[in-house]
Amino acid sequence: MLENLKREVYRANMLLPANNLVTLTWGNASGIDRDSGLFVIKPSGVDYDELDPLDMVVCDLSGNVVEGDMRPSSDTLTHAVLYRSFPDISGVVHTHSSWATSWAQSGRSVPVYGTTHADYFYGDIPCMRGLTEEEIQGNYEENTGKVIVEGFADKDPLAVPGTLVRNHGPFTWGKSVNDAVHHSIILEELCRMAAQTEMINKDVERAPDYLVQKHYERKHGPNAYYGQK
Amino acid sequence: MLENLKREVYRANMLLPANNLVTLTWGNASGIDRDSGLFVIKPSGVDYDELDPLDMVVCDLSGNVVEGDMRPSSDTLTHAVLYRSFPDISGVVHTHSSWATSWAQSGRSVPVYGTTHADYFYGDIPCMRGLTEEEIQGNYEENTGKVIVEGFADKDPLAVPGTLVRNHGPFTWGKSVNDAVHHSIILEELCRMAAQTEMINKDVERAPDYLVQKHYERKHGPNAYYGQK
Amino acid sequence: MLENLKREVYRANMLLPANNLVTLTWGNASGIDRDSGLFVIKPSGVDYDELDPLDMVVCDLSGNVVEGDMRPSSDTLTHAVLYRSFPDISGVVHTHSSWATSWAQSGRSVPVYGTTHADYFYGDIPCMRGLTEEEIQGNYEENTGKVIVEGFADKDPLAVPGTLVRNHGPFTWGKSVNDAVHHSIILEELCRMAAQTEMINKDVERAPDYLVQKHYERKHGPNAYYGQK
Amino acid sequence: MLENLKREVYRANMLLPANNLVTLTWGNASGIDRDSGLFVIKPSGVDYDELDPLDMVVCDLSGNVVEGDMRPSSDTLTHAVLYRSFPDISGVVHTHSSWATSWAQSGRSVPVYGTTHADYFYGDIPCMRGLTEEEIQGNYEENTGKVIVEGFADKDPLAVPGTLVRNHGPFTWGKSVNDAVHHSIILEELCRMAAQTEMINKDVERAPDYLVQKHYERKHGPNAYYGQK
Repeated sequence: MLENLKREVYRANMLLPANNLVTLTWGNASGIDRDSGLFVIKPSGVDYDELDPLDMVVCDLSGNVVEGDMRPSSDTLTHAVLYRSFPDISGVVHTHSSWATSWAQSGRSVPVYGTTHADYFYGDIPCMRGLTEEEIQGNYEENTGKVIVEGFADKDPLAVPGTLVRNHGPFTWGKSVNDAVHHSIILEELCRMAAQTEMINKDVERAPDYLVQKHYERKHGPNAYYGQK
Repeated sequence: MLENLKREVYRANMLLPANNLVTLTWGNASGIDRDSGLFVIKPSGVDYDELDPLDMVVCDLSGNVVEGDMRPSSDTLTHAVLYRSFPDISGVVHTHSSWATSWAQSGRSVPVYGTTHADYFYGDIPCMRGLTEEEIQGNYEENTGKVIVEGFADKDPLAVPGTLVRNHGPFTWGKSVNDAVHHSIILEELCRMAAQTEMINKDVERAPDYLVQKHYERKHGPNAYYGQK
Repeated sequence: MLENLKREVYRANMLLPANNLVTLTWGNASGIDRDSGLFVIKPSGVDYDELDPLDMVVCDLSGNVVEGDMRPSSDTLTHAVLYRSFPDISGVVHTHSSWATSWAQSGRSVPVYGTTHADYFYGDIPCMRGLTEEEIQGNYEENTGKVIVEGFADKDPLAVPGTLVRNHGPFTWGKSVNDAVHHSIILEELCRMAAQTEMINKDVERAPDYLVQKHYERKHGPNAYYGQK
Repeated sequence: MLENLKREVYRANMLLPANNLVTLTWGNASGIDRDSGLFVIKPSGVDYDELDPLDMVVCDLSGNVVEGDMRPSSDTLTHAVLYRSFPDISGVVHTHSSWATSWAQSGRSVPVYGTTHADYFYGDIPCMRGLTEEEIQGNYEENTGKVIVEGFADKDPLAVPGTLVRNHGPFTWGKSVNDAVHHSIILEELCRMAAQTEMINKDVERAPDYLVQKHYERKHGPNAYYGQK
């Protein structure tokens, strides 16, 4: 069942430690097959060294296990909410990568300070509001997803392909699980550079809007001219 | 004598440089056999490259060498005090890892800023009081252990599986020597992220209690649902 | 066509990820053949893992592709302007390396704090003025080059072999593409150390002029005595 | 001539990049044969990848080349002064390692904040005064050595086996070239942790004298009990 997607999701998960985004088992990637409405996700708490493509768990959009011998990631319901609410995405990644998690813990959105940021995220990378006590004691992982969706009510998830969950860590997404991994790699580096930028100049201001606009369109606009056609 | 434990302790020691927790010889791991009351520890000042499972030294709970040709770690008596006072632990690790040692040198406990922390340490990671001149000039390593035990009078060592010895560095423990190593890896990353969090937002506040509670119980409570059963 | 130069430029590009100067595809190196007035540059947005010497694109000094199946780097026109304006250079490198980009985002020039800096860059490493909205909406990449040339009106590009483009990142150059890569490696480390120096002493002052002068001449003056003859 | 020492010095030099202490060619190690009064040092500006034990240059204590086809390190006269003035040392290392150089550039001595420091350096690691314009324009490298010797008039070079040359970088030494390399590794980590300690607590105070004393004697005193006998 969904053998190719399992292999793709497996490889995407293995890219997380390879890119220094996870300590121990602190990360998970998933990919969805939009035709069947089923997504494939890493099993919970399994060492990356011992992971096998066949360990991947198949879930439906309510987060129920459809196939697999292992429990899916404890964050499965958050992934499910994102797939239900953002119909254009087909991959989701969650990590506790060092700099992105530090920004999430700080409660601040990441200001757009330069073109590296603008090439991938259109405007600041938003830090979500904290969950209420009721949301945490209720269906916690589902509510985590709902808080992200609430925070993106006025945003295009493909123009801002990731966010910081307050006191928790980053979630990214994309048109494929591989894109979602790329956005996690990029988000970590943007978070690192933004912190360093403020360390070097504590009164630094955001990059001008017209520069942000230009770089976003250079890569993603109708007349994009970055990369091969 | 205790061949399996020696191998386990050897492997745990080798994980310390592999996870960038030690410079030169600055670290040691031990594991105890609770039936015999004997523990196995790294020899003092030996290069990790030259370490052999058979070099591991067997000590009793007073820190006397029971078997082994080499001197045990100079911190052996601290390990012994922890094993005597915390009956539920079976492994202890000491390192001078960079961020945890920096917090220990700063004299501050590590505030709980997020779920990564709450998943493993229930509340702040406490920095112990400094030893007095008398304690240092007396049985220094034993007194180091006693200061930790004093600082944990009101704490469950399994809920807070590590600490910072002021002006010195981290000690962690766990149900096995492998768990103790994991807690050293985690502590280092938590210390790094807490410093970065404060760098990004100098007025940051602790994560709310109900979030800390939720995450700790998600992994360690009676209804834990992280990882495989 | 220009086979040796293609190989040299290919190798120079591969040194960028090997020296931790690029994330994903964020970098490009070029080298010029001054006799023909043609330069060779990396194709746009291609993974370093998949790069082949034969993928290198040959351009003329107006940035037109003379040979090659792929689009050249989106920064090609910036390289072209630098080659046209600085006749003594034969290699150009652009990266988004972490510390240099952070300085560029901060809008500050890098003060000369020590001999490591003075050995390679004579005086501060200048951060250029930001491009105007008109310059960005016009021929953006060409205007980026022109802003650099404007900022170097009173400077010798071989004595200051690199710069920071505001809100963007570093450009370096040299007598060969290999020299340009070396200057990118050096610039990143100088930027890191300058930030750390200010972190350690926020009131630090520049190194004295006579020390800067001495070190620059020790390596580059008529009586240079660093390295082999 | 001095084949064994050449091999030892070669291996010590190769440990510098292996321990991330040098960028490009920014480092050199030497060792002396006290019987003949000759020392062996790395040639100037040669890539570590291309270094060969036979490239090592033999010099006398005035810094004159006695054997070797290549120019010795440009810092040779500084090494010579240290060997002449500190009769108990037999190895010297100079690097531009990142954190130690940042402290040297900041102009501050490194305060003793913990036992890691006290295990190897008795008290603060001193930053030397800057050289005067006359000293720089005269015999610069020899004067660099003399400024170090002046700064150690009241210090035991074996109890404080290294220093920071202001606006320049670290020099370390030891009873052998291998010891000198170890002290460079240790100094870099102490500098990193001291900066981080001050980042975490800007009002931090030095470790108490009795703790510093205890740790230094635990490793180096007449009743030392660290390591094997």
